[in-house]
Amino acid sequence: MEDLAKTALLFDFYGELLSDHQRQIFEAYTMEDLSLAEISSQYGISRQAVSTMVRRCRKALSDYEDKMHLVAKFENIKSVVSEINVLAGVIEAPEAAKIEKLAGEILGDL
Amino acid sequence: MEDLAKTALLFDFYGELLSDHQRQIFEAYTMEDLSLAEISSQYGISRQAVSTMVRRCRKALSDYEDKMHLVAKFENIKSVVSEINVLAGVIEAPEAAKIEKLAGEILGDL
Repeated sequence: MEDLAKTALLFDFYGELLSDHQRQIFEAYTMEDLSLAEISSQYGISRQAVSTMVRRCRKALSDYEDKMHLVAKFENIKSVVSEINVLAGVIEAPEAAKIEKLAGEILGDL
Repeated sequence: MEDLAKTALLFDFYGELLSDHQRQIFEAYTMEDLSLAEISSQYGISRQAVSTMVRRCRKALSDYEDKMHLVAKFENIKSVVSEINVLAGVIEAPEAAKIEKLAGEILGDL
């Protein structure tokens, strides 16, 4: 998986386990693409401190995944539901349209 | 949801966020149904300490769910996939049998 997409997923699942302060700074750097200098001046901490915090958050998120495997679990569900969606697409029955709709709901939520 | 089933789900999702010691004692009490006295003698800590630890673990697991909502998310997926399964069951097409199989895989994993 592409690095930013993976970070976004990890953050989506485990971001709530970071402190508010960590989450804000990590989000500013990785998701909102602010520079170390911008975040440093915005939060009144050194660039070095921002950089260290971002690195630690990245490690923490990745450690949570190593323990809990939730991103992997959801990715697996997503891929199986996509398969269901494709299969339903070739069936000519009103129930198949309903299946597609339900599969789409799951994929939209994930 | 029935209390024990809910505890089991919470433990399944967030148990890895407890310490090894907490996890062992919580599991012994709630999943293996050992008594406070049995756990107390097995781990060499007082019944009161076991009881307090179990209560704190229960609270911690429930706090994780309040933050992360993963059990709720999975329960929702489970219910939608069950619906897909039922719909596929009434369709007469080879693809529908495949859909049932895939839905069953997801339900078995959850």
